[in-house]
Amino acid sequence: MSTVYIAGHKSPDTDAICAAIAYAEFKKKRGVDAVAVRLGDLNPETEFVLKKFGIPVPELMTDATGKKFIIVDHSETTQSPDNIDKAEIVEIVDHHKIGDLTTPNPIFFLSMPVGCTCTVLKILYDYHGIEIPKNIAGIMLSAILSDTVMFKSVTTTDEDKKRAKELAKIAGIEDMEAHAMEMFKAKSDVAGKTPRDLIFRDFKDYVMSGRKVGVGQLEVVDLSLLEDVKDPIYQEMKKVKEEGERHSVFLMLTDVMKEATELLVISDEPVVVEKSFGVPLKERSIWLEKVMSRKKQVVPPLEKAFASL
Amino acid sequence: MSTVYIAGHKSPDTDAICAAIAYAEFKKKRGVDAVAVRLGDLNPETEFVLKKFGIPVPELMTDATGKKFIIVDHSETTQSPDNIDKAEIVEIVDHHKIGDLTTPNPIFFLSMPVGCTCTVLKILYDYHGIEIPKNIAGIMLSAILSDTVMFKSVTTTDEDKKRAKELAKIAGIEDMEAHAMEMFKAKSDVAGKTPRDLIFRDFKDYVMSGRKVGVGQLEVVDLSLLEDVKDPIYQEMKKVKEEGERHSVFLMLTDVMKEATELLVISDEPVVVEKSFGVPLKERSIWLEKVMSRKKQVVPPLEKAFASL
Repeated sequence: MSTVYIAGHKSPDTDAICAAIAYAEFKKKRGVDAVAVRLGDLNPETEFVLKKFGIPVPELMTDATGKKFIIVDHSETTQSPDNIDKAEIVEIVDHHKIGDLTTPNPIFFLSMPVGCTCTVLKILYDYHGIEIPKNIAGIMLSAILSDTVMFKSVTTTDEDKKRAKELAKIAGIEDMEAHAMEMFKAKSDVAGKTPRDLIFRDFKDYVMSGRKVGVGQLEVVDLSLLEDVKDPIYQEMKKVKEEGERHSVFLMLTDVMKEATELLVISDEPVVVEKSFGVPLKERSIWLEKVMSRKKQVVPPLEKAFASL
Repeated sequence: MSTVYIAGHKSPDTDAICAAIAYAEFKKKRGVDAVAVRLGDLNPETEFVLKKFGIPVPELMTDATGKKFIIVDHSETTQSPDNIDKAEIVEIVDHHKIGDLTTPNPIFFLSMPVGCTCTVLKILYDYHGIEIPKNIAGIMLSAILSDTVMFKSVTTTDEDKKRAKELAKIAGIEDMEAHAMEMFKAKSDVAGKTPRDLIFRDFKDYVMSGRKVGVGQLEVVDLSLLEDVKDPIYQEMKKVKEEGERHSVFLMLTDVMKEATELLVISDEPVVVEKSFGVPLKERSIWLEKVMSRKKQVVPPLEKAFASL
């Protein structure tokens, strides 16, 4: 039986990593030789989570050529392992918009409009009656708290809250809020990081009406933490745009406590900002109240605006 | 609440029609204003099935512009309603290879590698504990028997057999085999049909490595039924290729009792036949023993061969 590798997206966040690990565990219990891998460095939140629950960091594997892959937490070529077209995709489990990955054969593909891939995985564990080990429940819970920003993001559904509560019980975590705050504090650590590290901490490329568009997100418990690095970040974004031949680069600086985002923008057509959010770009950013979700509040209006350019 | 239309693929077969009807019923029971529609004429098997279970023929709706759609039994743009890019896709339920439909927002997308979309729908009905009306169970069972050719096709899984048995019980059908034979006899009716009708009875367009490729299938209980129409069909296939600016047109003439297929071929590069099936094209067709499934036994080798041309 050949090994199946399970990978989340590039610039992995906590869900991308923990969903790969949790689904590998599920698959192993169903008799599949499954191995979770990662496509990039861990962010400090994910490092904290894996360490807390005593789970080793997955192996780095960026080239999919000739291998079997299960794709989790995305369904876009640009976010997949390199040369995914030369791999065999055997499953996809996700909670984002439906991307451009295709397959030559029928496969299991489940995407649900919920806040986190680990919520979908909890549903699969329950459907098949498979027991979740305590530490796996811990990282699945952490992924849900991370993706939904402790249920404050608009992406949050009742399923997320219900499954998170069940996972907390299995993991033996009595105070979800305290655990989430520990995670967010770890995530807010920008000390010693280069502007490039911070831009790519959670960065995704999209193709929007034929244009390559990068959208990153940096979440902190207080935006004042970023005051000193905002300017160097903006300068570095220009380089990121040039190097990647991108039409636009957006970076969401999200304050998870204030529940708002400052959106830094560099674009060949800055008018796309007003078309997307109804606010014209002044200097280098716009302020978006109640916006915390790239997937639900930033990417869809951008896609629509780019289609109308 | 705006109406959601549910559509199977173009050149609808029994699963495309019955899955749309069965999922509309499911959605209505969950409070959604859902309406099943069809993208083309019914084949005689589907006509027989709807008549037998007393279910009205869905309305024809080929243009999706400005509407909300649930897509069933496919995930390919070429098989979807016209202007699907100007519609909102709110869900996809399927059992084929993953196609090129994408969405700007997260949606529910479930595709399973089983023999029939109605098997997936039975799983969803059961998961949500929704009762299936007797006549709906009848058409769902019929779709499974049709798509799996009474469990003889290689696409058949244990799930298909299990769910079909449960549906037969609800529908009050004691002899599945007798019911299937009635369906296949209805499907084999070629009397009074033009060659064009027969080619388009179950015809799908694909894009394979940039080339437009049409693959049709005509299933009969005995290939001798097609002896007199084979030549006019082949002549008409040439026109179908020209009109649609297709690179190739394939038509599977499938004998469901002998479990074999004669594949009629017109192609700009006939070498693709030998590359796909290991047999060179002689005159206008090749004979494929044990081949009954377009999805699993014809489209994947073609995709692979086209990629290597």
